[in-house]
Amino acid sequence: MGKPLKIAINTGGGDAPGLNAVIEAVVRSAYNRQYEVYGIRNGYSGLLDTDEIIHLAPEKVRHIASQGGTILGTTNKGNPFHMPFTNMAGEVEYRDVSNRVVENFRRLGFDCLIAIGGDGSLKIAHDFHKKGIPVIGVPKTIDNDLAATEITFGFDTAVSIATEALDRLHSTAKSHERVMVVEVMGRTAGWIALNSGLSGAADVILIPEIPFEIEKVCNHIMGGELHGQHYAIVVVAEGAAPIAGNVIHKGEGEAGRQEVVLGGIGEYVAREISKRTGKDTRSLVLGHLQRGGSPTTFDRRLALRFGASAVRMIGAKKFGVMVALVSPDVKAIPLEKVIGQVKHVPLHGDTIQTARDIGISFGD
Amino acid sequence: MGKPLKIAINTGGGDAPGLNAVIEAVVRSAYNRQYEVYGIRNGYSGLLDTDEIIHLAPEKVRHIASQGGTILGTTNKGNPFHMPFTNMAGEVEYRDVSNRVVENFRRLGFDCLIAIGGDGSLKIAHDFHKKGIPVIGVPKTIDNDLAATEITFGFDTAVSIATEALDRLHSTAKSHERVMVVEVMGRTAGWIALNSGLSGAADVILIPEIPFEIEKVCNHIMGGELHGQHYAIVVVAEGAAPIAGNVIHKGEGEAGRQEVVLGGIGEYVAREISKRTGKDTRSLVLGHLQRGGSPTTFDRRLALRFGASAVRMIGAKKFGVMVALVSPDVKAIPLEKVIGQVKHVPLHGDTIQTARDIGISFGD
Amino acid sequence: MGKPLKIAINTGGGDAPGLNAVIEAVVRSAYNRQYEVYGIRNGYSGLLDTDEIIHLAPEKVRHIASQGGTILGTTNKGNPFHMPFTNMAGEVEYRDVSNRVVENFRRLGFDCLIAIGGDGSLKIAHDFHKKGIPVIGVPKTIDNDLAATEITFGFDTAVSIATEALDRLHSTAKSHERVMVVEVMGRTAGWIALNSGLSGAADVILIPEIPFEIEKVCNHIMGGELHGQHYAIVVVAEGAAPIAGNVIHKGEGEAGRQEVVLGGIGEYVAREISKRTGKDTRSLVLGHLQRGGSPTTFDRRLALRFGASAVRMIGAKKFGVMVALVSPDVKAIPLEKVIGQVKHVPLHGDTIQTARDIGISFGD
Amino acid sequence: MGKPLKIAINTGGGDAPGLNAVIEAVVRSAYNRQYEVYGIRNGYSGLLDTDEIIHLAPEKVRHIASQGGTILGTTNKGNPFHMPFTNMAGEVEYRDVSNRVVENFRRLGFDCLIAIGGDGSLKIAHDFHKKGIPVIGVPKTIDNDLAATEITFGFDTAVSIATEALDRLHSTAKSHERVMVVEVMGRTAGWIALNSGLSGAADVILIPEIPFEIEKVCNHIMGGELHGQHYAIVVVAEGAAPIAGNVIHKGEGEAGRQEVVLGGIGEYVAREISKRTGKDTRSLVLGHLQRGGSPTTFDRRLALRFGASAVRMIGAKKFGVMVALVSPDVKAIPLEKVIGQVKHVPLHGDTIQTARDIGISFGD
Repeated sequence: MGKPLKIAINTGGGDAPGLNAVIEAVVRSAYNRQYEVYGIRNGYSGLLDTDEIIHLAPEKVRHIASQGGTILGTTNKGNPFHMPFTNMAGEVEYRDVSNRVVENFRRLGFDCLIAIGGDGSLKIAHDFHKKGIPVIGVPKTIDNDLAATEITFGFDTAVSIATEALDRLHSTAKSHERVMVVEVMGRTAGWIALNSGLSGAADVILIPEIPFEIEKVCNHIMGGELHGQHYAIVVVAEGAAPIAGNVIHKGEGEAGRQEVVLGGIGEYVAREISKRTGKDTRSLVLGHLQRGGSPTTFDRRLALRFGASAVRMIGAKKFGVMVALVSPDVKAIPLEKVIGQVKHVPLHGDTIQTARDIGISFGD
Repeated sequence: MGKPLKIAINTGGGDAPGLNAVIEAVVRSAYNRQYEVYGIRNGYSGLLDTDEIIHLAPEKVRHIASQGGTILGTTNKGNPFHMPFTNMAGEVEYRDVSNRVVENFRRLGFDCLIAIGGDGSLKIAHDFHKKGIPVIGVPKTIDNDLAATEITFGFDTAVSIATEALDRLHSTAKSHERVMVVEVMGRTAGWIALNSGLSGAADVILIPEIPFEIEKVCNHIMGGELHGQHYAIVVVAEGAAPIAGNVIHKGEGEAGRQEVVLGGIGEYVAREISKRTGKDTRSLVLGHLQRGGSPTTFDRRLALRFGASAVRMIGAKKFGVMVALVSPDVKAIPLEKVIGQVKHVPLHGDTIQTARDIGISFGD
Repeated sequence: MGKPLKIAINTGGGDAPGLNAVIEAVVRSAYNRQYEVYGIRNGYSGLLDTDEIIHLAPEKVRHIASQGGTILGTTNKGNPFHMPFTNMAGEVEYRDVSNRVVENFRRLGFDCLIAIGGDGSLKIAHDFHKKGIPVIGVPKTIDNDLAATEITFGFDTAVSIATEALDRLHSTAKSHERVMVVEVMGRTAGWIALNSGLSGAADVILIPEIPFEIEKVCNHIMGGELHGQHYAIVVVAEGAAPIAGNVIHKGEGEAGRQEVVLGGIGEYVAREISKRTGKDTRSLVLGHLQRGGSPTTFDRRLALRFGASAVRMIGAKKFGVMVALVSPDVKAIPLEKVIGQVKHVPLHGDTIQTARDIGISFGD
Repeated sequence: MGKPLKIAINTGGGDAPGLNAVIEAVVRSAYNRQYEVYGIRNGYSGLLDTDEIIHLAPEKVRHIASQGGTILGTTNKGNPFHMPFTNMAGEVEYRDVSNRVVENFRRLGFDCLIAIGGDGSLKIAHDFHKKGIPVIGVPKTIDNDLAATEITFGFDTAVSIATEALDRLHSTAKSHERVMVVEVMGRTAGWIALNSGLSGAADVILIPEIPFEIEKVCNHIMGGELHGQHYAIVVVAEGAAPIAGNVIHKGEGEAGRQEVVLGGIGEYVAREISKRTGKDTRSLVLGHLQRGGSPTTFDRRLALRFGASAVRMIGAKKFGVMVALVSPDVKAIPLEKVIGQVKHVPLHGDTIQTARDIGISFGD
């Protein structure tokens, strides 16, 4: 009998609930096939400093699926193809150290790499694949903006946390007859805002896909006033922007300009609503609360399925691909078809339509 | 301008988290189209005793999407086509009172009926459709066993509650080195057991679709023992049964017969494991905990989408249909194609495969 | 038989989980004694505009104990003894309209007032008591800084929400090897920070009662580094301040001054830690999340006990008092002994001692 | 410098949320004083088989306070003073092996023992104290029935879980107009039933301290019926019993006797209510759900304080005592004053009074 197949696995980019579930499924599935799995710490750092490699036996990953974060860490030192170094003169310069990664990978006897990450990490994985490392990508983002897969793990958890926050804010907004503006994550896509706003009973949802007019937002809020509802909940995606486009993002303000966004788009929207409607208005940024903690049952299962599927693809020698949910199955999609694509909320999709039907305003 | 279109709406069968979200979406969508909505209390009872009809204005349903249960009640007195009555002699006899329902429906000026319910309720709705009432069905079951729709609301909540229970039981099972057997709902299908067992890190999952051998269940548990895990979690669907088929369900026991199931299949499994492995074993029936309380964000959105879609179908005069999730859209499926079909867990689906890959036993 | 005793009840000041539980207990206890209860909307506003008074029958309050917020609203227009008005010239001036409140109270036939509120509201209640209104105060603050009562309702919920947030942040802080700084409420007292920091496993807790040195905070974090923990959680009370005292609070910044706190003390602490340790550091303000949503079981019971006790005091004709927890009983404390007192965290109490024993730093 | 003080620690009896928090506080407090801590696995078993001893460094216990269960296990083989053995003839006989425990304790160089446990475990700890082992007890029970301490950790978590279950059951009970009977833990005391019933809005609470009449329970439920509430929630402590006393507990039934309790007191109460009122009635046993999972913030803090206090007592050489909450402090109480005492719900306490005031029935 030959020596067992050796799988390397790493996690890259922002934290997402479900990372540990992928790792657990990979290790347990591999164990059943007599493969060995080794965790690479902190993205590709563990393949530069090879003391950061851990043998993952099934006992080590038992029930980590219910835990947030990643036991492998994600604090990579950068893209191995474009790694920042500080030179003698104290300046930052970039070098390509990818060959060292490939050499270490080979020297350590690995047969393939499972790379769990977002768009950036998958791009790097693809580049390593082109350099000869057999790679399988596992898509990861709480923002749900990755192409090719119907949904990503971490997203349901993020939406749940945001919805729970909205539930809490309703009671206090109502008691005080306030407008509460809640800024949620999502980068350039409105998935988290749309879905949490819908299930958390927002009155207004502002997303990047639909540029808003602050005047229409205010009119909608004051219209609710006429119907006897003296408070309002506004959910704002971090990437949302007013139609006029005259918002300056955090830190970019210049003196003399009037509409400076100091605290992000949520604070801007709150300030405008307060100014224009005279209503007591507060804003809140959910921030990192959305990406920590125990994954929902949905995210655990999706992540477990992705992990088990990745190992099955190794068995079938399918490399250079990403696992993706194509309901009801998990399929292999070539990495080159996936990278650099952003999946936006479809403007005429059923969820947007539902929100409009029940009277939620998008400020357009 | 003519008089506004009048929609009747009712909820039937077992409680499911999301019922109120459907009602909220129907009322708010209807309001936007200047339709009126009337709630029929307790299934069809409200159309027999017509004092059980409530006008549903948007204010009445604001934010009920986050609440469990149904504001309309589900305590119907039975199927109007086959209604039980106690006669003079004290015997129960059945009468067809469906004409009275149709007459009241017409006399009250309703234009159509949105019937939210499980297989039984949808069958009745279809029968009324055949008698001339324009009907739209909305599928409802926590068991996820309805055909035509990919998923039903209430299911994600049920799985979440079961998963949270399993999370809790892990710590106590581990501390005491016990086997914990948890019986979950699902009728004749294994959806809740499979999905909660997977995300709740069960060691064994027993479902109706896969008849089990108790000996194999015990071997699997004792095998874990060898690997240093001294406890086990077993999830049993209420409809699961051993391969030999010699189980007698609750209340059917006869003296002299050996394997009598007194407390349901969960208790039977626990007793057998205890007897055969000698391990300290406990059983628990989650019961009605699985169908109450606030729906998950997933279920709220699905239910809101179903409700809004039902109103759009009314606008399009599509009747005799059921709304169904056919990703990523909500579509209309003829009721006749839906009724009487049970959707079982596919034996070769990706979820079962994932569970097997990571070493979960189905006792087969 | 004479006419039933008529109780007025209002809620004032910031929202706190448990307000509805007090109202439910008052109404149900009163019902059992054949008293009538009337809700005054929005603090004392309902006694200025007497159309804002609601009869509270037991059916109206059934199970509201589990709901956040207050069904009576808290948006008062100000202190009736010092009410702001805009005069002809557009300037704000203050008038004493307390006599109008007293007259309306008498004209409506009320026998007594249950005033649920924080220090400010209790002061007003006491002033009305001195003007002849029989008053019973119920203490309310999530900050737990009221004297005379061991604990206030809303506090356990606020601590629970903050603890859950800390639990979530641990996983993401650890994965990214970050310092997470979380600013929590508490006004000039450190109760929420101390208690959530202890149960949420913070490494550093900064409270108003213990002025901190940022250098010591950084040393503690870097010390953890030596022990192999590459991340840290810092909880900061909104009222915490560095020992040097050179912090300027939000909005008070002046050009030319170096240490301007733009985003509150949490942001200041995060910025300093980042600058001094070089570690990736993020800050988060929990804000209104801490005062909304369903109360914990502890807060529900405390609030129910306060409400029932207030009605018992009415039966005993004890007025001018506040109900207070003096374990294991609820007692009546004269309002004059309570007002204007702030309860701070005792520096040598068992909780601080425990935190120090297990190695948590207070930055001193 | 002498060798460091060596502390042994074990956990005994039923699982309770907070056990790990005690362990974490002990280890971290000890570390700060340069003491060493060793975990004894599975009660006293680890001192019989001395390979079951683990050195507990601070890294091993970091953040386990938030986890349910106990990392030390509680599966002891019995009381070392009365240990069951199976002799040649296959009969069970009991031996006193306590000397072996004492010898191993000394041989391993331990200076003292922290024994975390319920009444039974504390009794054994006291017996070892009398044999010369310096012992400090830490009280543990979810049932809150231990004397001398105001409250025990695990109790708040158990009450929270039961309350959350009641919240869920309300919506389903109301939709179906059912009576839901929920049996909760508590042994011979009614603490969990009383406190969860109060915060979970039960209509009836049955506790061991107040023998109930089933007729009065039924009358109360049907009285609610008159007030327009068509459903009811009944919480039953596992130790509750009807006034007549003619209940036979599980497994003790004899043929010919009429009122056999097959499924525990909850099922008995449900059956009687169904029979006598004709209402659709269901029962549920919460069971082990109440003792697993992450402790509430309250329980974490209480447990951390107990652990830190135990180490302080070691520093002060106070042995033969139990730590106890005597608000606001944690004090040392001699073990001999504590053992064998059961703390019952005081019949005239404020909580019972509150429940009666708001119209909850105790069936008396």
